[in-house]
Amino acid sequence: SGLVLVKNPHLDLMEEDVLYHLDLGTKTHNLPEMFGDIKFVCVGGSPRRMRAFAQFMRRELGLAGPGEDVADICGGSDRYAMYRAGPVLSISHGMGIPSISIMLHELIKLLHHAKCRDVTIIRIGTSGGLGIEAGSVVITDTAVDSSFRPRFEQVVLGDVVVRSTELDKGLAEELLACSRDIPDFPTLIGHTMCTYDFYEGQGRLDGALCSFSSEKKLEYLRRAYDAGVRNIEMESTAFAALCGLCGLKGESCRFHLL
Amino acid sequence: SGLVLVKNPHLDLMEEDVLYHLDLGTKTHNLPEMFGDIKFVCVGGSPRRMRAFAQFMRRELGLAGPGEDVADICGGSDRYAMYRAGPVLSISHGMGIPSISIMLHELIKLLHHAKCRDVTIIRIGTSGGLGIEAGSVVITDTAVDSSFRPRFEQVVLGDVVVRSTELDKGLAEELLACSRDIPDFPTLIGHTMCTYDFYEGQGRLDGALCSFSSEKKLEYLRRAYDAGVRNIEMESTAFAALCGLCGLKGESCRFHLL
Repeated sequence: SGLVLVKNPHLDLMEEDVLYHLDLGTKTHNLPEMFGDIKFVCVGGSPRRMRAFAQFMRRELGLAGPGEDVADICGGSDRYAMYRAGPVLSISHGMGIPSISIMLHELIKLLHHAKCRDVTIIRIGTSGGLGIEAGSVVITDTAVDSSFRPRFEQVVLGDVVVRSTELDKGLAEELLACSRDIPDFPTLIGHTMCTYDFYEGQGRLDGALCSFSSEKKLEYLRRAYDAGVRNIEMESTAFAALCGLCGLKGESCRFHLL
Repeated sequence: SGLVLVKNPHLDLMEEDVLYHLDLGTKTHNLPEMFGDIKFVCVGGSPRRMRAFAQFMRRELGLAGPGEDVADICGGSDRYAMYRAGPVLSISHGMGIPSISIMLHELIKLLHHAKCRDVTIIRIGTSGGLGIEAGSVVITDTAVDSSFRPRFEQVVLGDVVVRSTELDKGLAEELLACSRDIPDFPTLIGHTMCTYDFYEGQGRLDGALCSFSSEKKLEYLRRAYDAGVRNIEMESTAFAALCGLCGLKGESCRFHLL
């Protein structure tokens, strides 16, 4: 049916669903009216970038009137920012798996309550590239953990549940095809490694703590490259797992800055 | 000596240290002049709350001139917000362990570069209480993981390193003593459970996914209570581990809202 799936039998029994961190709710807002026509959701870490992206999309779609600006739909909360450009939602998710998970749970419920159909969600932003040219864009086929395994370990009531982290292969190919029209950005499909930590977890030598040598760092990154990893960031495994379980066609496209 | 410790031999060899997510650096800013007299750092998830806290502290310390406002020291970055009130820094850390870890790595280096001495760091904010009165404040003695173990598992180059999560007992007692002067807030010392997820990880029945019954949820929370847990949040194990390793006297005080 193309509808977004929630997998929670308790939701039907609730009189009201408050999407607390988005400052939205089923009793306070008419979600089908506000969001029923949404077809694309783009998410990224930084609120300012997601605002700039919504402004860009409005110009691209011919929706930007003179002097008009985009308003933060989640303005009553400072946890996330949400902007709209026609059928495109642009939302920030902060940094790391816990932060993106809270946003995705509430976004998935939002799309469900709004009765949205055939929604595509794309994670955009920057990441650290691995053995690729600066300025490249990596489209993720599979998100892997810090041991290069294609899995996301979710703790549910103290027990570990293992979830798949494959993303939509058809969508990855579609995005790769789009990239062929833009000559300046080398684009490739590869694995994306997701860590819980930016400094020690990604082998950085400039954190407050560092117990390893430059050689050990390079050895680890070489092993990651050999396992198919082409970029490193901090949200993709949870993103892939949640999209997969809830019937959202999802992809991650990250720009390798340095 | 009371100095903040960095445990990273590479830092001495670096010509410049860019604290990227704070939009500060050793070459662009005079960190000893800006921060050398800081004695207290208060951190919390929400940027707006940390701004309000800085304004409150300025009034309490008699530093607020008429019409004056606090400026965001990290204004060039939208990852974190930082405000100052005399010897007190007030910083937001977003939600979850990965987000607070990035901030703490850069804060610890900041305090080190600024040659700060005898710094106390206190995490403030809200949390979910467990078997305690609404409106209570929980001061953490030890942070525990979702299996109630007093440990933080940090992945370093793909290997798991286990770190201690005890907080400063003397500081906890001092804070408890302070609370005796404020009759309206019941305050207690207890364990704080730290999870990587807000919905499934904390037994909530209202996420996009929920595979357990209300009974299973209560059974899990009862086991947590029996293990000494009095509140649940998403940052304390990493906070305790990093403070402990870097010689920062740290505590967590969370207000149980509902």
